[in-house]
Amino acid sequence: MLHLPFLNLARQFRAIFFDSYGVLRDSGGAIAGGVETVEALRTDGVLIRVLTNDASRSRGQQAEKFRSLGYTSIRPDEIITSGMMARQFLQDKVAGGLVAYLGTAASARYITDAGCSAVAMSEVTDFTKVDAVAFLDDEGFEWARDLNTTVNLLRIRSVPVLVANTDKLYPTRYGRVAVATGGLAKMLEEVVGRRFLHFGKPDTQMFHHAFEDLNLQDSLAKRDILMVGDTLGTDILGGNKFGIRTCLVLSGNTSLLEYQAEIQRVGIVPDFVVESIA
Amino acid sequence: MLHLPFLNLARQFRAIFFDSYGVLRDSGGAIAGGVETVEALRTDGVLIRVLTNDASRSRGQQAEKFRSLGYTSIRPDEIITSGMMARQFLQDKVAGGLVAYLGTAASARYITDAGCSAVAMSEVTDFTKVDAVAFLDDEGFEWARDLNTTVNLLRIRSVPVLVANTDKLYPTRYGRVAVATGGLAKMLEEVVGRRFLHFGKPDTQMFHHAFEDLNLQDSLAKRDILMVGDTLGTDILGGNKFGIRTCLVLSGNTSLLEYQAEIQRVGIVPDFVVESIA
Amino acid sequence: MLHLPFLNLARQFRAIFFDSYGVLRDSGGAIAGGVETVEALRTDGVLIRVLTNDASRSRGQQAEKFRSLGYTSIRPDEIITSGMMARQFLQDKVAGGLVAYLGTAASARYITDAGCSAVAMSEVTDFTKVDAVAFLDDEGFEWARDLNTTVNLLRIRSVPVLVANTDKLYPTRYGRVAVATGGLAKMLEEVVGRRFLHFGKPDTQMFHHAFEDLNLQDSLAKRDILMVGDTLGTDILGGNKFGIRTCLVLSGNTSLLEYQAEIQRVGIVPDFVVESIA
Amino acid sequence: MLHLPFLNLARQFRAIFFDSYGVLRDSGGAIAGGVETVEALRTDGVLIRVLTNDASRSRGQQAEKFRSLGYTSIRPDEIITSGMMARQFLQDKVAGGLVAYLGTAASARYITDAGCSAVAMSEVTDFTKVDAVAFLDDEGFEWARDLNTTVNLLRIRSVPVLVANTDKLYPTRYGRVAVATGGLAKMLEEVVGRRFLHFGKPDTQMFHHAFEDLNLQDSLAKRDILMVGDTLGTDILGGNKFGIRTCLVLSGNTSLLEYQAEIQRVGIVPDFVVESIA
Repeated sequence: MLHLPFLNLARQFRAIFFDSYGVLRDSGGAIAGGVETVEALRTDGVLIRVLTNDASRSRGQQAEKFRSLGYTSIRPDEIITSGMMARQFLQDKVAGGLVAYLGTAASARYITDAGCSAVAMSEVTDFTKVDAVAFLDDEGFEWARDLNTTVNLLRIRSVPVLVANTDKLYPTRYGRVAVATGGLAKMLEEVVGRRFLHFGKPDTQMFHHAFEDLNLQDSLAKRDILMVGDTLGTDILGGNKFGIRTCLVLSGNTSLLEYQAEIQRVGIVPDFVVESIA
Repeated sequence: MLHLPFLNLARQFRAIFFDSYGVLRDSGGAIAGGVETVEALRTDGVLIRVLTNDASRSRGQQAEKFRSLGYTSIRPDEIITSGMMARQFLQDKVAGGLVAYLGTAASARYITDAGCSAVAMSEVTDFTKVDAVAFLDDEGFEWARDLNTTVNLLRIRSVPVLVANTDKLYPTRYGRVAVATGGLAKMLEEVVGRRFLHFGKPDTQMFHHAFEDLNLQDSLAKRDILMVGDTLGTDILGGNKFGIRTCLVLSGNTSLLEYQAEIQRVGIVPDFVVESIA
Repeated sequence: MLHLPFLNLARQFRAIFFDSYGVLRDSGGAIAGGVETVEALRTDGVLIRVLTNDASRSRGQQAEKFRSLGYTSIRPDEIITSGMMARQFLQDKVAGGLVAYLGTAASARYITDAGCSAVAMSEVTDFTKVDAVAFLDDEGFEWARDLNTTVNLLRIRSVPVLVANTDKLYPTRYGRVAVATGGLAKMLEEVVGRRFLHFGKPDTQMFHHAFEDLNLQDSLAKRDILMVGDTLGTDILGGNKFGIRTCLVLSGNTSLLEYQAEIQRVGIVPDFVVESIA
Repeated sequence: MLHLPFLNLARQFRAIFFDSYGVLRDSGGAIAGGVETVEALRTDGVLIRVLTNDASRSRGQQAEKFRSLGYTSIRPDEIITSGMMARQFLQDKVAGGLVAYLGTAASARYITDAGCSAVAMSEVTDFTKVDAVAFLDDEGFEWARDLNTTVNLLRIRSVPVLVANTDKLYPTRYGRVAVATGGLAKMLEEVVGRRFLHFGKPDTQMFHHAFEDLNLQDSLAKRDILMVGDTLGTDILGGNKFGIRTCLVLSGNTSLLEYQAEIQRVGIVPDFVVESIA
């Protein structure tokens, strides 16, 4: 199943959807050889989109981060974040209402950009004024205090709860991980007995968004696109369900030693596997 | 929250997405007043699509059924079924392979229409030849024999498993229900420890499909569309997530006596509630 | 199903197992009439045990608390806590090892009383030295920091993880609730994909312990005992499974307005229902 | 972690609790060397109990089966089945009521032995007369027809539902498996939204029963007992939670190739591991 090198595979497609963390970059910076691969694809005229479940930063901030790592050609409009999907929901369905959020002040920009008012969960004074709740980031708030406030708010208010990131864990440094927004949200779903609205892969919304966006200028079919990701349960499942070819890279969440057992265990099967995009 | 009558509400939109069972029809035939409502919408030029998790019959067969109930204006191309989403996946990703299915012979048409070969689970002779498994219908096969065969097949083959209907239960007659395809699939997911690919609401795929289809001829925004359904966890959740207005009807799965407690309990909030589409 | 008054019912049994919070006391102090009921049972020679999922305090501290509320006759040896079940496990299976805990310094006494060494999760310096992990209390530690440390510890160490309290939420003041130890543990089980060892009702261990303890001096059969609790999923399920009669009180987690719908919904059926033990 | 041979380990204990399938026997008959090991333990005066989640046959029938395989010394009173736990519940809590069952006619003896009336689910004529439902065996009934009847019965009756076997799968022949009673029950719990009463390991009830039974004649402490099983999630988890030493054998559900990864993944740690009891 292992195909080498990635570039030979990628050149058979007209567009590549990249996951960000574990594929293009990791805690050490750019993935070795990644910048060269992206530039080679540019030269060949292959279209690129980055689909990321990171909702803590705007696409502009993420492009800036890529630039600092050497990926100078990745533009903000080529980046689709799960936060954008949540923002669209707020714009369409909460329309100017008050959104109590868990996250950093920076992450709250998804709320204000949607034309809604943002209030940190710690500063909510009247539960009855809140029109929606948003899990934006695992940082920027005191877990014990603010998660308990959220539970009490949800016991008396049946408002929509948005989770801007479906991931349960994310890698930090030195091989360590941290509980992500999606993990905290799962706990509250369990304790309050509710279903929240999760945005991000494996849901196919971001794929639809990227696909429609590409087709504004070009005319691509699904068979022209390859999704490249390091996580079976998000990148590969989402790509499979959307109906495009999928390629697992072993430079992130899924390791060379374990990937075959993992594929067998969860039953999510990528079309291709490569060690990295180098 | 209760808005009466439905037609006054519906006329504020340019397009209506209807769920089928519990909204347009039930075990007794057409919902009282439903045919008149649909005709009034036609006269006003409101566009109509039917989004159904029923994958046991083709859109042609479903249009035929609607016709027999008096809904003479509903065309096959206005009906989007979860089976169509599954068929698209088979076409894109299984491409001519062999699909072992659980369901009636009629339901297997989704497989052959996708250009794949279909074999009933009871007639699989060589597990290693199977490229995908599809749960299409809860009828047409012997549960004990064929579900056990499926478990054994999945223990040695890591192939994609499609579930053409996310519903766990469906209404039969005299207020009774039956376990649906989605319920059987859930059991096997639990016993084999795998995640299957579920097609149908609340996933937003069918909404994307209907939306894109409408925009081939017209130019509609999401705010122009109303989703009408009887089930919070599929119709309303899906519509909310896709970003369109949602209307719960109390003529099917959710009753007048319980809907407020149910909304509070699960946290899925429709924009409107009406007793029926009459 | 409603039986009044409680005392007439209770006198038909030789022993009563009481849950603590919501039955004997709540945030306002002793349940109205509770002290008188307990005294009446003492006069009649009815045996009493308190079975509580509160593992944050020892049975001595809990007896002291009861005394301060007017329950002067409840002795430490009549109180069985889920923490005691966890302590027994540590004694039998971890035997002198190092236990990293999440909770207050006071709650760590369950560890040291079991002959093990206790270290707060925030002070663990070497993951490889840890022989077990214990969730003891939701207070006394910084959630974000210490839960993330726990996740990382469990990724490299396959040691037993004890949860000294199966409850997901507990009532605080003014009708509010807080996430309990069991809720935090559930989140980590979800994100690390492991099963922890949960102690407390509805598991029947505490019932066995109380039953054996009573039979050291008396000779009781299961039909001689009544379990009295305010929560269907712990007190009533546990009592039912252990095989004794169960009585739901409506002075705590389950309200008069909702109890019938709740019993129907979850399918856990008490033998009796009373408003309170008054 | 691998200890060889088993007998040297077992002789350090005063009593051994054996799981049956995968430990003492499998589809091919007695485990190679198993009969000799049991006889050697008898000679040494080591006490033996068999703890099995097989509720389809009585302890008498199971002893008869063991005898036919060469285990001539295993007596009916040394066998504890999950069905016995369910029978005790029926006796204590359903007391002469009508129990609708799913299973073979033979399995219904657990109901009649408890002094209750048994009716096959397919022959229930009046839902309102049913006092309890029991899942006894995966054979002896038509799944589609009788599981659907059960769903409809449970929608209108909030009676206790007993599951006499927590296993989801059981091995048949030629390396194949079949969905067990516990798997069918899980599906119905999911579709009707209820919690059933599951009897069998990992619940500690059977361990308590065996322990109390041994102590009627002898005086054993928990440290004197070793649980031997082939399944981490039932035998080993149950033994760990009950507080006795546990030994995983690799002759059944858990293989030599996978056991270390499996222990790491699920976090259930046996004290010892041996290839088989030979």
